[in-house]
Amino acid sequence: MVIALLTDFGTIDHFVGAMKGAMLTIDPDAAIIDITHEIEPQDVRDAAFTLMACYKDFPAGTIFVAVVDPGVGSNRRAIAASSGGYYFVGPDNGIFSFILSDEDKVVELKNPSYFAERVYSTFHGRDIFAPIAAQLSKGVWLEEFGPAIYDPIRFSFSKPIRNADGSLTAEIVHIDRFGDLITNLSENDLPELFHIQIGEKVISKHCRFYGESEVGELITLVGSGGYLEIAANKDSAERLLNAKIGQDLRLTREN
Amino acid sequence: MVIALLTDFGTIDHFVGAMKGAMLTIDPDAAIIDITHEIEPQDVRDAAFTLMACYKDFPAGTIFVAVVDPGVGSNRRAIAASSGGYYFVGPDNGIFSFILSDEDKVVELKNPSYFAERVYSTFHGRDIFAPIAAQLSKGVWLEEFGPAIYDPIRFSFSKPIRNADGSLTAEIVHIDRFGDLITNLSENDLPELFHIQIGEKVISKHCRFYGESEVGELITLVGSGGYLEIAANKDSAERLLNAKIGQDLRLTREN
Amino acid sequence: MVIALLTDFGTIDHFVGAMKGAMLTIDPDAAIIDITHEIEPQDVRDAAFTLMACYKDFPAGTIFVAVVDPGVGSNRRAIAASSGGYYFVGPDNGIFSFILSDEDKVVELKNPSYFAERVYSTFHGRDIFAPIAAQLSKGVWLEEFGPAIYDPIRFSFSKPIRNADGSLTAEIVHIDRFGDLITNLSENDLPELFHIQIGEKVISKHCRFYGESEVGELITLVGSGGYLEIAANKDSAERLLNAKIGQDLRLTREN
Repeated sequence: MVIALLTDFGTIDHFVGAMKGAMLTIDPDAAIIDITHEIEPQDVRDAAFTLMACYKDFPAGTIFVAVVDPGVGSNRRAIAASSGGYYFVGPDNGIFSFILSDEDKVVELKNPSYFAERVYSTFHGRDIFAPIAAQLSKGVWLEEFGPAIYDPIRFSFSKPIRNADGSLTAEIVHIDRFGDLITNLSENDLPELFHIQIGEKVISKHCRFYGESEVGELITLVGSGGYLEIAANKDSAERLLNAKIGQDLRLTREN
Repeated sequence: MVIALLTDFGTIDHFVGAMKGAMLTIDPDAAIIDITHEIEPQDVRDAAFTLMACYKDFPAGTIFVAVVDPGVGSNRRAIAASSGGYYFVGPDNGIFSFILSDEDKVVELKNPSYFAERVYSTFHGRDIFAPIAAQLSKGVWLEEFGPAIYDPIRFSFSKPIRNADGSLTAEIVHIDRFGDLITNLSENDLPELFHIQIGEKVISKHCRFYGESEVGELITLVGSGGYLEIAANKDSAERLLNAKIGQDLRLTREN
Repeated sequence: MVIALLTDFGTIDHFVGAMKGAMLTIDPDAAIIDITHEIEPQDVRDAAFTLMACYKDFPAGTIFVAVVDPGVGSNRRAIAASSGGYYFVGPDNGIFSFILSDEDKVVELKNPSYFAERVYSTFHGRDIFAPIAAQLSKGVWLEEFGPAIYDPIRFSFSKPIRNADGSLTAEIVHIDRFGDLITNLSENDLPELFHIQIGEKVISKHCRFYGESEVGELITLVGSGGYLEIAANKDSAERLLNAKIGQDLRLTREN
């Protein structure tokens, strides 16, 4: 099966290699795919966003191992889950928040016979999550790993708030490599004509793609995840606006 | 088949994962290989250089997906091509300039039945190029994807210019991770004895490999692509010379 | 077979792609895994540490190709070795120091019929090491590649020194992405109660995992490789202590 990895381990150290080795030792036929290892250290929320943004592009049955785990070794639970035909393995810290629903099956990883022989309390990625993922890949049932739980940690995806004047207060939920600002405004939230205020700046040009604007011009468009983005053609909206994740913005309908 | 990826998507976001997922959904047996995702954003020319520098090292039949695509969503064409037993998929913006010749078969990607069900105008990497590559991998003919075109965009590889005094004016076409400066002087352009002037500096030591020089000494050598490089043993010629891509240099024959 | 790569080539250039292409051309079924390509340029010692830290996590038979090779092209030897059921291919410059023992079989790569047709003196990664690894993957015997040698370069893993007062002088051997300082103090070196002095700072809190401490508090713990680490919960010990690889520290037993 495909096993897709998302961590904050970076690619300088041996951590990712160790996880891959541990998985291949159990299932030599696993097709291991890197999503990213460059999540900002311990930024569980951004990991949750990044996983949400791409998991549905993978084939049914894909096993996602997501390890951004500041609580490793503590009594935070370790979990595996199935949702929509996919499998998920990682810490119970909200990393699967935007994927799991009340109907999904979640188990706590309690059965040490599926762990590494010695579990280091600082590296569950290698010693618990990797072996479990490889066992899933080989066909072991989720139920084997431990008891069902019904209260995995889930933080909510921030939703825009409607103001008294009809405008929406939204926020920046992610900033990508190009400096595009991804908001929590779904394409379904958008009136036909609108402008966006962010800080002192008002952006009223809405495009279908970057090249529809002048170089360096601030625009909005619907990004590939279905959410409104603020971007600048061949430039960085992040830099131009000195923008930060979590920053507020306001959408106002135009008449 | 092998599918090799080259993009400017970076490895922080979900973009590369989304492309890989889309390919594996169509062809679960594809062997996906990363060349790089660290092309400077929107630097089509450097992407073209990097692809040229390694594609012949891959097995016959390899499918290269190259996505550095500032014009995504606009009316720039999307293409697939075959050349020398390899396949290429990406935007028609010159990214295959140093590979395609007049004899190669190129088609415009026009048949939406091979695209994702919904094509986002900001992410053709996932919604057009990845699916086409995976279909090629499964054996679909190039001709299925759209009509042949005969004028793909190709910019020329800059060639050294011969001056009145017999010297050659060349330029830096790429700077690698180690700070080595790759020039457009082919090993066939080199007289037996020569020196290189770059800025105020004259370099007259020509080596076969880095270790033939003192640490920090500026030298020239023929790099692994067959082009003259300026390098500094265990140091960065880029830093020592404050060099830039596109910068001129002059080769003079010694008597 | 699994072929695992560790280099200082970075991921900006075509180097890694070229090596992968060369391997797949010889063995299309090789499962190529990246450990890291972000070793600090020419830091053979850190490459040796990183490889040691993870190779045992891989399945038996894995072929490791390690290329941090400042002496490429010079008369430094190229070698392949087998140790503990694994294979190793790379320059003879100490990169396998922490793996090879006197009993292990090591051959010098001398048989050009297994190299690329043309070997560039600046890129043995592509032209010698990659082809040899792929031939190993296909089942060629180590002995085919050249004569046995018995003196591969090995530098010793620095060991703590016992002082007259019973304390141990140790050192930092690696700093990871999170700013954790990995020392050469094995868990077997540790008395029940101890403190660590590094620079002016004394650290006396020993934890099992990061979360057992306050945010930003300096602690020690046994890391996933079995060595003592200095860390700071959700912060960087490297930054807090302005620490460097090779820096001394002192372990004193408490009564």
